[in-house]
Amino acid sequence: MSSILKGNKINVSVFGQSHSKSIGAVIDGLPAGFEINFDEVSEFMKRRAPGHNSFATPRKESDEVQVLSGLVNSTTCGAPICAKIDNTNTRSQDYDSLKILPRPSHSDYAAYVKYSGHNDIAGGGQFSGRLTAPLCFAGAVCMQMLREEGVEIKAHIYSVKDAYDEPFDACEIQKTELDPFFPVVDSEAEKKMKDIIDHARGKGDSVGGIIECAISGMPAGVGEPMFDGIENIIARNIFAIPAVKGIEFGSGFSGTLKYGSENNDNFTVENGKIVTEKNDHGGILGGITSGMPIVFRVAIKPTPSIALPQESVSLETNKQEKLEIKGRHDPCIVPRAVPAVEAVAAITALDLLL
Amino acid sequence: MSSILKGNKINVSVFGQSHSKSIGAVIDGLPAGFEINFDEVSEFMKRRAPGHNSFATPRKESDEVQVLSGLVNSTTCGAPICAKIDNTNTRSQDYDSLKILPRPSHSDYAAYVKYSGHNDIAGGGQFSGRLTAPLCFAGAVCMQMLREEGVEIKAHIYSVKDAYDEPFDACEIQKTELDPFFPVVDSEAEKKMKDIIDHARGKGDSVGGIIECAISGMPAGVGEPMFDGIENIIARNIFAIPAVKGIEFGSGFSGTLKYGSENNDNFTVENGKIVTEKNDHGGILGGITSGMPIVFRVAIKPTPSIALPQESVSLETNKQEKLEIKGRHDPCIVPRAVPAVEAVAAITALDLLL
Amino acid sequence: MSSILKGNKINVSVFGQSHSKSIGAVIDGLPAGFEINFDEVSEFMKRRAPGHNSFATPRKESDEVQVLSGLVNSTTCGAPICAKIDNTNTRSQDYDSLKILPRPSHSDYAAYVKYSGHNDIAGGGQFSGRLTAPLCFAGAVCMQMLREEGVEIKAHIYSVKDAYDEPFDACEIQKTELDPFFPVVDSEAEKKMKDIIDHARGKGDSVGGIIECAISGMPAGVGEPMFDGIENIIARNIFAIPAVKGIEFGSGFSGTLKYGSENNDNFTVENGKIVTEKNDHGGILGGITSGMPIVFRVAIKPTPSIALPQESVSLETNKQEKLEIKGRHDPCIVPRAVPAVEAVAAITALDLLL
Amino acid sequence: MSSILKGNKINVSVFGQSHSKSIGAVIDGLPAGFEINFDEVSEFMKRRAPGHNSFATPRKESDEVQVLSGLVNSTTCGAPICAKIDNTNTRSQDYDSLKILPRPSHSDYAAYVKYSGHNDIAGGGQFSGRLTAPLCFAGAVCMQMLREEGVEIKAHIYSVKDAYDEPFDACEIQKTELDPFFPVVDSEAEKKMKDIIDHARGKGDSVGGIIECAISGMPAGVGEPMFDGIENIIARNIFAIPAVKGIEFGSGFSGTLKYGSENNDNFTVENGKIVTEKNDHGGILGGITSGMPIVFRVAIKPTPSIALPQESVSLETNKQEKLEIKGRHDPCIVPRAVPAVEAVAAITALDLLL
Repeated sequence: MSSILKGNKINVSVFGQSHSKSIGAVIDGLPAGFEINFDEVSEFMKRRAPGHNSFATPRKESDEVQVLSGLVNSTTCGAPICAKIDNTNTRSQDYDSLKILPRPSHSDYAAYVKYSGHNDIAGGGQFSGRLTAPLCFAGAVCMQMLREEGVEIKAHIYSVKDAYDEPFDACEIQKTELDPFFPVVDSEAEKKMKDIIDHARGKGDSVGGIIECAISGMPAGVGEPMFDGIENIIARNIFAIPAVKGIEFGSGFSGTLKYGSENNDNFTVENGKIVTEKNDHGGILGGITSGMPIVFRVAIKPTPSIALPQESVSLETNKQEKLEIKGRHDPCIVPRAVPAVEAVAAITALDLLL
Repeated sequence: MSSILKGNKINVSVFGQSHSKSIGAVIDGLPAGFEINFDEVSEFMKRRAPGHNSFATPRKESDEVQVLSGLVNSTTCGAPICAKIDNTNTRSQDYDSLKILPRPSHSDYAAYVKYSGHNDIAGGGQFSGRLTAPLCFAGAVCMQMLREEGVEIKAHIYSVKDAYDEPFDACEIQKTELDPFFPVVDSEAEKKMKDIIDHARGKGDSVGGIIECAISGMPAGVGEPMFDGIENIIARNIFAIPAVKGIEFGSGFSGTLKYGSENNDNFTVENGKIVTEKNDHGGILGGITSGMPIVFRVAIKPTPSIALPQESVSLETNKQEKLEIKGRHDPCIVPRAVPAVEAVAAITALDLLL
Repeated sequence: MSSILKGNKINVSVFGQSHSKSIGAVIDGLPAGFEINFDEVSEFMKRRAPGHNSFATPRKESDEVQVLSGLVNSTTCGAPICAKIDNTNTRSQDYDSLKILPRPSHSDYAAYVKYSGHNDIAGGGQFSGRLTAPLCFAGAVCMQMLREEGVEIKAHIYSVKDAYDEPFDACEIQKTELDPFFPVVDSEAEKKMKDIIDHARGKGDSVGGIIECAISGMPAGVGEPMFDGIENIIARNIFAIPAVKGIEFGSGFSGTLKYGSENNDNFTVENGKIVTEKNDHGGILGGITSGMPIVFRVAIKPTPSIALPQESVSLETNKQEKLEIKGRHDPCIVPRAVPAVEAVAAITALDLLL
Repeated sequence: MSSILKGNKINVSVFGQSHSKSIGAVIDGLPAGFEINFDEVSEFMKRRAPGHNSFATPRKESDEVQVLSGLVNSTTCGAPICAKIDNTNTRSQDYDSLKILPRPSHSDYAAYVKYSGHNDIAGGGQFSGRLTAPLCFAGAVCMQMLREEGVEIKAHIYSVKDAYDEPFDACEIQKTELDPFFPVVDSEAEKKMKDIIDHARGKGDSVGGIIECAISGMPAGVGEPMFDGIENIIARNIFAIPAVKGIEFGSGFSGTLKYGSENNDNFTVENGKIVTEKNDHGGILGGITSGMPIVFRVAIKPTPSIALPQESVSLETNKQEKLEIKGRHDPCIVPRAVPAVEAVAAITALDLLL
């Protein structure tokens, strides 16, 4: 079932490889009667598309979405929406040698074993970050529907390597204005992050970072205990984004450094509503929403495609060989992963609300 | 579907509340013809049970498992196994006041809203850590089956507050001997951890920590891309354990501090087998096993039940009130959560292998 | 996942074998705050239990249900309900010879192959009709919840062999009074059916029949197109009842004998509400409820356990051998299957409504 | 989840409406490394396509399939296959009046209520029989893969109204030669069926019938007890085909007319293999394959679209009105439904085998 984000109501079947004719998604279970604002969808998808800032791969794709089904004019009709994006700018020959010389920390070797060598190696095949484009389409639509329910989703670059942004103040997320292509709260941090990325690019190397995402406006009492808690479901869906290697909610790993008396969130009353004084629980108690913003952070590993020479093993000779990766690669995927994180959060949140 | 760990083949339906007549699980999809070693199961379950070391709650439960179905003598017959553990030592009156005064950072408030006040508050109801006992039973059985396939699962206390154990050396996990009740590699670290817990108990406070788990012996090529990757599924299942607030694979969050050239794992050949020189990828590439040990770490928050006075809000008056929690509580749940993490890892790994 | 009725909200994990210590079910996803009337549950379960009329197996089981979890007093609390029924009157030795001499048209041979001979043969193991007892418990609870939503479920014996009852008049189902143990509308038909069963018993033979079930009060617009239509889901769940070999909705197979102009159901208005003039569509259009009663019929094959000698093949010698089945068996399972059909209909209908 | 055929391994997400830009399916979970014979796929799809015989709608669609993903050249690579068919010959204006005057025994009214009037009414929208085209593509591919495993699937027109073909002789199915567009064993029956269809067309009326399908070559021991038996899964998937109102396995409903001693299938040995003397059990015992051919019959109701005037109710005025359906319609959908039944059987059988 690998390609399907399976919600209670909403299912998103993703298809495509980096260099197949098209990529896309079938989105099933959206409410009927919602008019989609396609300009807004385009704006959102640009944030993920390559070529929109100097920190991204020079591969140019218009990422124009064609909707094949599911709408009457621009309004959902209850039938699944199939959204398709054509791959236009493909250069498969860049990848021919990788078939038998797997790139370190890429899916190449694992996919080779799993598919007995039949995997599509070009551009990483179905493992490519490009597959987040249809997720972003689905997320953009869900975000519009969520807004009508008073739910907002916002993510920022929390860190690039060791340059850290300010954490979201749980109560002020809605007011934070962020640049769509490089969303950082603190402009000092932004400068440091960009320097780090430039430096990595210059060396033929890469860096990773952390994305922090907040879902505000969710009512209390949503989610299920144990295996279908909010954390379980968000985690499952977020790990679909390539290069994600960790997720934490609320105080997360840093909460293990505190005493219970510090990490616990006392309840209080604000404008007649029960809230917590701070939000170390990340808006989730026992797998269920508390009414506070859901806050989570996602670890994105350094892009494994680097220009520096590396060691691999030939799948033909079973001998170690030097590998040099050609082609176009982001020195840091974090900025373009931000909308992907938001998109997955949006699909998940809408499904939980329906 | 909250109470069901849903695998491809194996499903585990957990039932019970902290103070219901019984707790247990129905385990469906195990292979037929396997003779269960019940002594070994008991040994494993003791590691989770209270009363086996001074760091745990003084509540005493024999945690004796009765198998109601699924076996012919001690051998699996293909029918679901129902395993039941009776709750014998319950003191529900301890919890009466909590119904309207939710404990900070507990499930009480979220459950109250979700279930319109009908949730079973005694002992945390279905949100209690006690519900990991049937998971441990299921895990113990799966572990025996995995061993026949050459797969071993081992976890240790990676940290308690700011006292850290040595990380597992990926290649030496099998050889590491660990104490079953307080598994730590470095005895210095162990001493520090125990001091921290004692200190927290003395103050009426609590601490959390990190558990590191390794699954070794999994062949390469297992798992699915995108939404059914190894990371997705392990994460989804691990968050079923109460108090888990984060999970990371391989170098995880600390990998974001490295350059790609440092974090990438070069391939090499060892005894004719393709391996990586180190294991920052945690045995998973593109959601699929690489053949290296799967390594992940789990953040356990400080036990939210503390003796120190806290602030809550009465659900009757909607006014803030002081709360003092009575009853029996672990100052640190980490040691007893170790077998729960191993158990969930075992169920998940066996399901992936079948 | 064999033992789990998987709804959108409600899941029922059935466990047990005919002669295991207990049988039962874990019911997850029921709404919290509903007080169960256990007297009514017992009345319902008696209809399925053996020993309540002369047409059933002489095996006596009290079928007393113990609820192990999921309730606070008698009220659902949101946690899964585990209901357990102990097997008290088991005579496993009756079945020893069957292990290697499979009964014709029983599961024995298929189960032997599937489980490599490790299947529990006693009483049919997990394939026994006895496993419908926990389904009846779950159904009885769901029926009480449905009644609060104005939904009623009623089934009758539509035929035993070639003796046919009157079909339900779609509009008068609610008013029909039926005997709980042998529910037939037409008393002439009832007499014929009982004669047929007596005659079959006398010969050491068995007979089957058809059960007709109606779900009235479902609002229009419930269900999903294609794979999650009402017919799809009811069919999937009903085939879990042993001995079911067919299902049809509305005019079903007999509708294939009509012209479209005869089979089509014209719309009209009744008390301001849109209804159809008759109900050949069985309350379902395009997989979705039309607001008319859902009507379906279920084919129950003649009980495969008969006293007459039959031919089988020894799984040891691979040679044909005569087989004589000992033990206690219903000459006609249809009367006791009626509450099982109602129960599965109730679980399914409640899940669709939630 | 309505649009997704959910197997254990294989998932098929269908998309499209009768008059949307395209229809299609995403097929996930097929084994990698299989080279698809597209000529054979085309041959198969022609059997479903309109315009290939005089008994079908005059709407002409080339039904040319474009594969957007999932292949390297013509070989599966493990990534989901997206197959797309463009709708070229649409005449939406035919349907404008139906929006408020629902056709009897069509999905119109139920869909109107479910989607609050936002459903796509043109050509029946997502409820159109046209949506079986992508299912046929998926089925054609699965059939090729099944053939390599020795599994063959064959269906014929068992009846049109009261004209009946001979039933499949379970043992001779493989040898039966059938016309691809009007598959009937007995040429006398074929003539009668065609006369009946011609007669119905002449009157502006329609007829239905029964399709019988056999899956031969499945090994014994496949399938799961209770809710995931072969019957449960085939039934669930087959009801996705529009106009299906019933399904029966083996002797099915007619088995209820027999004594157990007649309906039971004695075991015997043939060429060293355990088989049954006849096949009233339809190849399935206890939900699990017996090794005999799986045989089932499907009731297809008379096409609800007829030229004769009918009664409906205006959704605007809530008053009864005469309705005359314009447009192009099959007087009997049964011949074109045969490949759809085979296709669903193929997808289901392959998924069970994997």
